[in-house]
Amino acid sequence: MRVSFIGLGAMGFPMAGHLAKNFDLTVWNRTGSVAQEHARTFGSGAASKLADCGDADAIITILPTSREVDEIIDELAPKLKSGALWIDSTSGDPLQSRQSAKRLNDRGVRFVDAPVTGGTPGAEKGTLTVMIGGSESDFRRAQDIVKPFSAKIFHCGGVGMGHAIKVITNTMNAANIWVAGEGLLALKKLGMDMKLALEVINAGSGRSNATENLVPKRVVDGQWPLTFKLSLHDKDIRIANSLAHSQHLVSPVFGLVGQFFTAACNELGHQADYMDVLKYAARMNGEEW
Amino acid sequence: MRVSFIGLGAMGFPMAGHLAKNFDLTVWNRTGSVAQEHARTFGSGAASKLADCGDADAIITILPTSREVDEIIDELAPKLKSGALWIDSTSGDPLQSRQSAKRLNDRGVRFVDAPVTGGTPGAEKGTLTVMIGGSESDFRRAQDIVKPFSAKIFHCGGVGMGHAIKVITNTMNAANIWVAGEGLLALKKLGMDMKLALEVINAGSGRSNATENLVPKRVVDGQWPLTFKLSLHDKDIRIANSLAHSQHLVSPVFGLVGQFFTAACNELGHQADYMDVLKYAARMNGEEW
Amino acid sequence: MRVSFIGLGAMGFPMAGHLAKNFDLTVWNRTGSVAQEHARTFGSGAASKLADCGDADAIITILPTSREVDEIIDELAPKLKSGALWIDSTSGDPLQSRQSAKRLNDRGVRFVDAPVTGGTPGAEKGTLTVMIGGSESDFRRAQDIVKPFSAKIFHCGGVGMGHAIKVITNTMNAANIWVAGEGLLALKKLGMDMKLALEVINAGSGRSNATENLVPKRVVDGQWPLTFKLSLHDKDIRIANSLAHSQHLVSPVFGLVGQFFTAACNELGHQADYMDVLKYAARMNGEEW
Amino acid sequence: MRVSFIGLGAMGFPMAGHLAKNFDLTVWNRTGSVAQEHARTFGSGAASKLADCGDADAIITILPTSREVDEIIDELAPKLKSGALWIDSTSGDPLQSRQSAKRLNDRGVRFVDAPVTGGTPGAEKGTLTVMIGGSESDFRRAQDIVKPFSAKIFHCGGVGMGHAIKVITNTMNAANIWVAGEGLLALKKLGMDMKLALEVINAGSGRSNATENLVPKRVVDGQWPLTFKLSLHDKDIRIANSLAHSQHLVSPVFGLVGQFFTAACNELGHQADYMDVLKYAARMNGEEW
Repeated sequence: MRVSFIGLGAMGFPMAGHLAKNFDLTVWNRTGSVAQEHARTFGSGAASKLADCGDADAIITILPTSREVDEIIDELAPKLKSGALWIDSTSGDPLQSRQSAKRLNDRGVRFVDAPVTGGTPGAEKGTLTVMIGGSESDFRRAQDIVKPFSAKIFHCGGVGMGHAIKVITNTMNAANIWVAGEGLLALKKLGMDMKLALEVINAGSGRSNATENLVPKRVVDGQWPLTFKLSLHDKDIRIANSLAHSQHLVSPVFGLVGQFFTAACNELGHQADYMDVLKYAARMNGEEW
Repeated sequence: MRVSFIGLGAMGFPMAGHLAKNFDLTVWNRTGSVAQEHARTFGSGAASKLADCGDADAIITILPTSREVDEIIDELAPKLKSGALWIDSTSGDPLQSRQSAKRLNDRGVRFVDAPVTGGTPGAEKGTLTVMIGGSESDFRRAQDIVKPFSAKIFHCGGVGMGHAIKVITNTMNAANIWVAGEGLLALKKLGMDMKLALEVINAGSGRSNATENLVPKRVVDGQWPLTFKLSLHDKDIRIANSLAHSQHLVSPVFGLVGQFFTAACNELGHQADYMDVLKYAARMNGEEW
Repeated sequence: MRVSFIGLGAMGFPMAGHLAKNFDLTVWNRTGSVAQEHARTFGSGAASKLADCGDADAIITILPTSREVDEIIDELAPKLKSGALWIDSTSGDPLQSRQSAKRLNDRGVRFVDAPVTGGTPGAEKGTLTVMIGGSESDFRRAQDIVKPFSAKIFHCGGVGMGHAIKVITNTMNAANIWVAGEGLLALKKLGMDMKLALEVINAGSGRSNATENLVPKRVVDGQWPLTFKLSLHDKDIRIANSLAHSQHLVSPVFGLVGQFFTAACNELGHQADYMDVLKYAARMNGEEW
Repeated sequence: MRVSFIGLGAMGFPMAGHLAKNFDLTVWNRTGSVAQEHARTFGSGAASKLADCGDADAIITILPTSREVDEIIDELAPKLKSGALWIDSTSGDPLQSRQSAKRLNDRGVRFVDAPVTGGTPGAEKGTLTVMIGGSESDFRRAQDIVKPFSAKIFHCGGVGMGHAIKVITNTMNAANIWVAGEGLLALKKLGMDMKLALEVINAGSGRSNATENLVPKRVVDGQWPLTFKLSLHDKDIRIANSLAHSQHLVSPVFGLVGQFFTAACNELGHQADYMDVLKYAARMNGEEW
């Protein structure tokens, strides 16, 4: 099977590496030298121009936002084979994906959204979790293609549902991080040691992925690594809130947390890590971590 | 050692049961028959009047709120021995506890706040987590007394810090529950199966005690058991917010979640369980679980 | 000058009445009998089909949302004269208006957004305030056409700026209404007479259009008239929040108030008046007005 | 009638000036030289020590917070005549006032809370609005005493209700200011001139004391005068929110706006003017006025 892979960023590069062992793989990247490096490293074929990706049974995209995916679709659609399957692993917008799917379907091309979670370690080890939105038969086709880089593959519903649960999960994480920040800053102000506070919280009902994994090392130990840009997390929350909005849903905490992520972007710059939102929370309190 | 135990509710009854095996224990309850039942069950001594609790080396209280503790202190203080230790396991108010401690200290009586977590199962098995606020030496004395019903005992700081971390942990839990509700209601509206949604969330970054333990059985399986009254959880959040308030802290999500717990109390009545706040969240969305 | 007027609702009917005295006016309405009644009342010409509106120097639309405007544009655009001016008085979406303007411009047709404020009394008396977005020369053309039904005409900037300030003004009003509700409900709970409370508030710094005009008669006197549907006000807030969102603005109170308007729609139904949001506020407090 | 006046700040100094013409007036201030200056200016008698204020028919206090009032009451109460009337014009806390009233009543002294609004211009011209809480007969006595500096005097209910409506009015003003800020910042980002924006808003439904009086000169004209400290306004909102809290009221916008005033205090310092909260709002948006 011929597969094209478009977008060789921190996630895409190793993901495509796993596929090179299983498929006849062509890779493309806006900066061409990255594709050539991929070819040297994994034995894939580097496309010299985007159009070379058109003649494939499956096309995988993983790009910053759905806007870039749309631009690629516009450019590549006329070259695609009828019956091809487009798999979009971008952390994208469900409503835009439905429109993309429709445009592709009109040309006989199938579409699933298939965002991933697990970070660059998961991409390198091939143990990502993939959340797929699309028809039952498209899901089954996609499943076989993404298997080389995945540990868990979920069929989440129709087109857009992969993106939907991805952004909602990220927004829940964002909210739980902020909540952990409010609790810890209050305890800090009262004079409590942060490690003891986390130990007590994690022995009780207030624990979350934020208190068990994210805050201890990254914040309390003062490491603050850059793992996922604040501006990209802000974008995911923005998509989740637009989605809620368009469904007439009432999500006041998602909404409020989104405001603080945006304010933190405005204050800290778009290169900041998403955990830096807790620096912004501390600043509101006139404190530091 | 002579120990008096005041407040034989769902938690206090089994907690005092463990102490009866280790100390010369006198128990008292507003409804006297409960004390007599405790005496029959565990071989404790049932006090016929509150004053009988005064002649003890340690007094333990576990009552609905700090207000009831204050009333008992007012009544019992003149009867207490100098050097006695008061251990308050109520889920109480740190600022009121500091005043109570001061009043008792003036009479030569020591005070620690020692709220517990772990629910009635933990109380029955003697595996509670205890969060103690008080001086180093008072902590050591209290530790020996609460050991029979505890699995973990934390020294959280000076008087009030046990109560402080208890209410802040409960507020973090409240917020994480509400956040889980917003996420799940959005996915429900989009047509996703709730069990699948939880499975995906718990495989990713959005997981918390709420999504892993509380919501699956209680909400999604439709059990909605009464384990902790909404109005008592609302009181804990109210204490946490007052505490933040008095420290000039900025805790907007704690504040907003507290508003919804209070609104849910107004709507659902004070007998509702705290997880019923998610029924209120669903209602805001025009949905049902 | 030939003018076509599309949308003879509670606002459009009297607005078009003023135009009939000044221009060669053709009117159209989805329900044709309304157009015929307009012709009988004001001497306008009732179009039997939408296409009859195409041959005009200016076309005015005032419809529920920008979606209906877009549908009419799609249908009518091929019939329009080059150089015609489209004036959209719908309370619409600035971003959609910019797209509409572009589509019309491509065919040589000009576009301004020109939403109005002042209610049906203002429409009947011809004393509306009109907020126009468009180029300087388009503004001047539009000004002459809307003059018969207007007391004040503002040029607010380029295309979309009329809609923008309209929805933002409405959202400020929504927020001020909600704020008045929180203040008055607190005073009510404390036992204060509502008329006295309003008198004191309006003698001091807390006054707004809500406390001076809207709440006294409609809420406190118990009249609760239907003047503007809650669901339409909710739509305007939704547009304002989307606009803020797309500009990466931080507008937490606009966001939160929007959530309560949506929740009130879900609770009270879409036919409720926008002031009924205060019934929802009272209900959250377990009170009634 | 002998009257004592305690607290000669920016408001108290001119207020007491009006009383000096009508009563046998003794004035006291923490900094004694201010009392002497008052005596020279208005012919009042400067008390050399607080105790000299005790022998009066009425005592008026106007101090930063209820805490300072309580300290003065503790010191002066043993010196007071039975039947004397204490009038507290501090912008104070209703719940603390009720306790103060009780302590004074126990000694045969009456109490009303009587906060004022109208600013230093109103204090100088003697045209303040006074909001009185107390019994009907105490209100009538107080009315005759405060008349020289007042244009409007309201009887708002029992003890504490003057303070209650004062802090609630101030919180409504705070919220309306913030709402005006969100609206204007959005319009600014969209490129609209601020004066035009205010003109349109004030011609429509979104107008408030904030948009009509406070924002145009102080913010848009760039004057930012210091008229009322941010930290004192923050204190008033804090009292209003505590009051709402203690009554189990649901006031989410009051709550959220209070959070932003506290954050602005933490960011801008306690000497900032209350309108400076809009500098904080701009900063959240990465903008400047």
